[in-house]
Amino acid sequence: MAGRNHLYVPGPTNIPDSILSAMHLPSEDHRSPNFPLLVKPILENLKKIFQTEKGQCFIFPATGTAGWEIAISNTLSPGDKVLAYRFGQFSHLWIDLAKRLGLDVEHVEVPWGQGVPLDLLEARLKADTSHDIKAILICHNETATGVTSDLPGVRKAIDAAGHPALYYVDGVSSIASIDFRMDEWGVDICIAGSQKGFMLPAGLALLCFSQKALAARESAQCRRAFLDIGDHIFHNAGGYFPNTPSIPLLYGLRKALELLLEEGLENVFARHARLGEGVRRAVAAWGLKLCAQAPKWYSNAVSAVVVPEDFDARDVIHIAYHRYNLSLGAGLTELSGKVFRIGHLGDLNELSLSSAIVGTELALLDAGIPLTPGSGIAAAGAYWRETAPAIPAR
Amino acid sequence: MAGRNHLYVPGPTNIPDSILSAMHLPSEDHRSPNFPLLVKPILENLKKIFQTEKGQCFIFPATGTAGWEIAISNTLSPGDKVLAYRFGQFSHLWIDLAKRLGLDVEHVEVPWGQGVPLDLLEARLKADTSHDIKAILICHNETATGVTSDLPGVRKAIDAAGHPALYYVDGVSSIASIDFRMDEWGVDICIAGSQKGFMLPAGLALLCFSQKALAARESAQCRRAFLDIGDHIFHNAGGYFPNTPSIPLLYGLRKALELLLEEGLENVFARHARLGEGVRRAVAAWGLKLCAQAPKWYSNAVSAVVVPEDFDARDVIHIAYHRYNLSLGAGLTELSGKVFRIGHLGDLNELSLSSAIVGTELALLDAGIPLTPGSGIAAAGAYWRETAPAIPAR
Amino acid sequence: MAGRNHLYVPGPTNIPDSILSAMHLPSEDHRSPNFPLLVKPILENLKKIFQTEKGQCFIFPATGTAGWEIAISNTLSPGDKVLAYRFGQFSHLWIDLAKRLGLDVEHVEVPWGQGVPLDLLEARLKADTSHDIKAILICHNETATGVTSDLPGVRKAIDAAGHPALYYVDGVSSIASIDFRMDEWGVDICIAGSQKGFMLPAGLALLCFSQKALAARESAQCRRAFLDIGDHIFHNAGGYFPNTPSIPLLYGLRKALELLLEEGLENVFARHARLGEGVRRAVAAWGLKLCAQAPKWYSNAVSAVVVPEDFDARDVIHIAYHRYNLSLGAGLTELSGKVFRIGHLGDLNELSLSSAIVGTELALLDAGIPLTPGSGIAAAGAYWRETAPAIPAR
Amino acid sequence: MAGRNHLYVPGPTNIPDSILSAMHLPSEDHRSPNFPLLVKPILENLKKIFQTEKGQCFIFPATGTAGWEIAISNTLSPGDKVLAYRFGQFSHLWIDLAKRLGLDVEHVEVPWGQGVPLDLLEARLKADTSHDIKAILICHNETATGVTSDLPGVRKAIDAAGHPALYYVDGVSSIASIDFRMDEWGVDICIAGSQKGFMLPAGLALLCFSQKALAARESAQCRRAFLDIGDHIFHNAGGYFPNTPSIPLLYGLRKALELLLEEGLENVFARHARLGEGVRRAVAAWGLKLCAQAPKWYSNAVSAVVVPEDFDARDVIHIAYHRYNLSLGAGLTELSGKVFRIGHLGDLNELSLSSAIVGTELALLDAGIPLTPGSGIAAAGAYWRETAPAIPAR
Repeated sequence: MAGRNHLYVPGPTNIPDSILSAMHLPSEDHRSPNFPLLVKPILENLKKIFQTEKGQCFIFPATGTAGWEIAISNTLSPGDKVLAYRFGQFSHLWIDLAKRLGLDVEHVEVPWGQGVPLDLLEARLKADTSHDIKAILICHNETATGVTSDLPGVRKAIDAAGHPALYYVDGVSSIASIDFRMDEWGVDICIAGSQKGFMLPAGLALLCFSQKALAARESAQCRRAFLDIGDHIFHNAGGYFPNTPSIPLLYGLRKALELLLEEGLENVFARHARLGEGVRRAVAAWGLKLCAQAPKWYSNAVSAVVVPEDFDARDVIHIAYHRYNLSLGAGLTELSGKVFRIGHLGDLNELSLSSAIVGTELALLDAGIPLTPGSGIAAAGAYWRETAPAIPAR
Repeated sequence: MAGRNHLYVPGPTNIPDSILSAMHLPSEDHRSPNFPLLVKPILENLKKIFQTEKGQCFIFPATGTAGWEIAISNTLSPGDKVLAYRFGQFSHLWIDLAKRLGLDVEHVEVPWGQGVPLDLLEARLKADTSHDIKAILICHNETATGVTSDLPGVRKAIDAAGHPALYYVDGVSSIASIDFRMDEWGVDICIAGSQKGFMLPAGLALLCFSQKALAARESAQCRRAFLDIGDHIFHNAGGYFPNTPSIPLLYGLRKALELLLEEGLENVFARHARLGEGVRRAVAAWGLKLCAQAPKWYSNAVSAVVVPEDFDARDVIHIAYHRYNLSLGAGLTELSGKVFRIGHLGDLNELSLSSAIVGTELALLDAGIPLTPGSGIAAAGAYWRETAPAIPAR
Repeated sequence: MAGRNHLYVPGPTNIPDSILSAMHLPSEDHRSPNFPLLVKPILENLKKIFQTEKGQCFIFPATGTAGWEIAISNTLSPGDKVLAYRFGQFSHLWIDLAKRLGLDVEHVEVPWGQGVPLDLLEARLKADTSHDIKAILICHNETATGVTSDLPGVRKAIDAAGHPALYYVDGVSSIASIDFRMDEWGVDICIAGSQKGFMLPAGLALLCFSQKALAARESAQCRRAFLDIGDHIFHNAGGYFPNTPSIPLLYGLRKALELLLEEGLENVFARHARLGEGVRRAVAAWGLKLCAQAPKWYSNAVSAVVVPEDFDARDVIHIAYHRYNLSLGAGLTELSGKVFRIGHLGDLNELSLSSAIVGTELALLDAGIPLTPGSGIAAAGAYWRETAPAIPAR
Repeated sequence: MAGRNHLYVPGPTNIPDSILSAMHLPSEDHRSPNFPLLVKPILENLKKIFQTEKGQCFIFPATGTAGWEIAISNTLSPGDKVLAYRFGQFSHLWIDLAKRLGLDVEHVEVPWGQGVPLDLLEARLKADTSHDIKAILICHNETATGVTSDLPGVRKAIDAAGHPALYYVDGVSSIASIDFRMDEWGVDICIAGSQKGFMLPAGLALLCFSQKALAARESAQCRRAFLDIGDHIFHNAGGYFPNTPSIPLLYGLRKALELLLEEGLENVFARHARLGEGVRRAVAAWGLKLCAQAPKWYSNAVSAVVVPEDFDARDVIHIAYHRYNLSLGAGLTELSGKVFRIGHLGDLNELSLSSAIVGTELALLDAGIPLTPGSGIAAAGAYWRETAPAIPAR
């Protein structure tokens, strides 16, 4: 097919050309005297993305899944109780991983389309007077449902209960797209991946540990080797890594950090909010509903759209891909056939996202779902016009 | 700005990633024994694009402007009379160039928005009983106005007059986008450039000469050196060039030819026709008119859209660029402020072109030009849905 | 500095331009219907590199270190006894990792510069009449010392003892450079990495499991999640991965496999042997010795060169890097200051390796180590001239 | 073949990876408001390379051959007398081109291997009391013979004769490699190409005109259109070009200028001098002679090496290419079979050039030319060691 595929899955996201070019370079010696000149500024700039001064960042040649394991295995022991909420496929998978590592996971079922229930959380922590719960696992942005949970609210609940539990956040699909503040919100470990807001290929698990989390290493009995942060702490001090890093991804990460910090984190978040709202207006104009059940849970990174009862979302996705060269995200497990997902995170602007809205509309119509042609983009466009920055006159 | 610029000027066009990758390679010796293995198949495949078996193709490290000069200086002499029609900036520039080279150009003014007037042409040739006219210069697709002339009609007119004039075609913005048949239409020289339908950066003038045009070299007295095809004929025979070629552009051209021939020329033309018609439906839905004055002249490569009387098209272009990251073509000289142009040629599909339509609509609205929001893309989309190929069921 | 850095560490190795171009491409959906068309042929071709028909290959978005852990954690249980030989930094690190995972590692110290002692191995296995030893960990090519062990000999020793132990091979710096035959030699797990013979950046752990190793999953009690091959077996069946893969590395791997199979594995091994012998002739001509103590252990992938007693190899490396833009490998831990290493694996030919030999000679001379100028390259060149393939006459 | 081809023809030269990456980018609108931000600094920095403050630079989407024509056709008229010296294939071709353009070329035969004969030049100019000679065409660095002429000497000769002739320099293979001073040496037009010292692909003719040359446009009667600098003067003023430029080459040129100015022109020239001297020492050690007949003519950009009487240089080149993947330059026309050429200009350092020296030695030996193995690189290396900059201690 001529023309590009239009990629609007919620990750991997579109990679800016400047990052692709930054990654296209000859191999080099990762033990050379100059290598720390690459590594150290990356580790410093990464802290700015996590909005931390006190934390320590790590870059593993792995994926977000590995990030979940790194968080757990470096700080906890088999049999430790952790508290988690299951409201989508990714919160589900983290719970599953924690169980495989031998933790005693107390997981609470929450309707898919809602986020962390702060009242239940606070009540549970208050009830845990013996402080059995060692850590709380929170999925910041549930990619499967397009739901963003209230992280400052989680911190408030923990504090209200005066509970010492470690506070772990899966930020894979939120970091660098949705506001996240490591220090201010008292998060102990945050996990990100390279292939979402960082606009890179997958292949890097990016983590930030608080000092409290670092201290928990002492007592952690989970066996770990490749995913042990201890080796990283040792080698990072000199600007090196314990293993051979993926050098193109490091150069790509350096460029991504430059792009994000040049745009300014607040502007990055505002852009995601504005683009996401455009998508939501389009969905409303089509007469469809989001999986996210209330505005407080609407995600600025991804929208899961519910198709009407008698239709199958897989048809929409199938038509979009094969007929219009548009890649949408599928509904996962419980949501299969019920939703399709539009990723609106990473390197995008109004007109690139317009392709996704237009293509979705065409696919919806082809699938027989009734809507007013042009209504989606008209609604999104109206919002973007209202909120576009002023420009100097010609 | 995040996200790509959306490039919809009528050239340079968007370059497919596979071509960009094909051009990213180390330097090499253009006199090596292996170099002809690259060059010879390119020259052969190029003939397929011009739809010729009898003609000979040339690749100059230059631009379309050079192509105009190559055509003239290799076949004509100062003082030779040539006939040309002026109906846009590019037909104008070719006429200007011919004059600079010392030709006696008889140029006929045609309203901008129309193409070659076949009746006038035939009458003029019939009147030229002494065969003073040595060549006819025809701009196939006038990029400034979005007008495509009737090339088989030109041949018919020449034949009806029984006139021996050479028949030269500027195909810079048509070749590889709009049907062109060198042999069948009896064209003597056709000029193309790399940066339009070939989906490459500028830097190559691509030409095809008929045997009749090649024979005209004998008598041509225009002085020429860098642009002399004689040196190319000599070196091309062995698979080499007289000068150092731009090797990345050759590899890019090889890939472009592969892409075009894999898709199939007929499919390439049909795609351009279908995408162009979508744009025209959008324009009509907005209540605007094209510069092209009748459907027979509508270009499948570019649409020049007229703004209402009290508006300035430069405002639309300015807003599109600065506010929505969309590059539209400007109105040139006589059309400045009166039209803006949407290029719809090269590597594009429905959804990429949707960005241009959506962005144009937003800019039109911002410029105060009244239209129904969403109407343009609704009209284009309806047409594309109707005409989209069937896909296998899920 | 102008000109390239000359990279001759034993990994990461030089990446061919065709692989770099293959990796430079836009992001895509790793759950698309077309994705298996990329993945399945890679998994099939990978089997050819491991020379297996019965085994199953895995691609993890991780490194060789992860590969060591994948082998162990998917097949063994804490407390299991494994037998290993320590004769360099990498065999050391694998032993260390096995211990961290809770295995009972019986490790045998072997002088650095020698390989696996086959007689001792056979004797030990014969003595283990109760079959307490569950697996044997063998480093095929010890990158720290430039020593290649005799893998068929290991198989013979195991068979001579009639021992059922699993046979694991670290092939990180041998696979795709030095002959390795999974099926013929009865290896149960082989671990490779992308950044050596595969000529890619680091970021992929490539493994092959025999059916016996796959069966061992049933009883394996090591906790594992990210590194569990079970999820890969499930998803690979459809041509997918459990996590988001590094898509550029997959395209790069596809290209690498094409390059290796086009050259032919036997030719790849022969090229490495011929280039490695050139380096060894140069070393001998300089009057220096290899760390590898006998020809049977000479590695065709890397040579560790011992500097004379009163000199420090770190000076040679320092001068080579800062003065001649040449990256050599350092001596690790016990060998620090005693050896420097020349990597001669991956994408290289006589003249590229000549840079390493010439640069090493200049650095040796600058470091005050006496030798006859030009002697190294004269010796290597003489060997390469003798063994160069005949070419057709001009 | 594995490993890179080793490219040591005297152009096109090796392209640094940073330039290749800079050229790998999406297409853009060359009429956008931002385009001048790219163009204007390039035109300014280009002046620094020509070492001019008073001159004006031009960038044509063409080659060095076009540059020769641009110089002549923009300033001279058919029938004008010009004086030129023929001492190699490139000085020959410029003379031939001038004749094709209708100039009255007085060309003086000089033995190939010598440069401009300053005494003859001065005498001729003194004899031209009627100032019939309008321009002098000087090839700075004759790429065919490896001869650099004395440009300040030419200026002195002109001044000694008090002659008003325009002074034109072909600097295609010298600019950015060998010292050149537009203003100080009173040069009126200098022509360069992108594919030599600028380390880019071919495709740009880069020129500098003095004010005197610019003034000569008024009276110049040569017909010109594509190669007319008038259109460039007009469009460059705004930061644009009259034609569609090759955008990748502009970004590449921007990067090349950055690299050259960061290294510092003096350092660039010194590096070329030092590397060239290394090659000359190798040639001497082999017992061979240069085509350049005296040290004052030795070129720091290319060495043409004479093979002994009974041998054919084409055999050496054939063996080098097919057996050792080394591209050497051939002897051209009169020198065919008598010399081979080693290009040592552009992006290279000691060890990259070592590949050329080692490969040449192997090919010479294979061709049966007697020499002491290793002698060439020993001599070059000794020189480079002596002259290498000091480095900080470890």
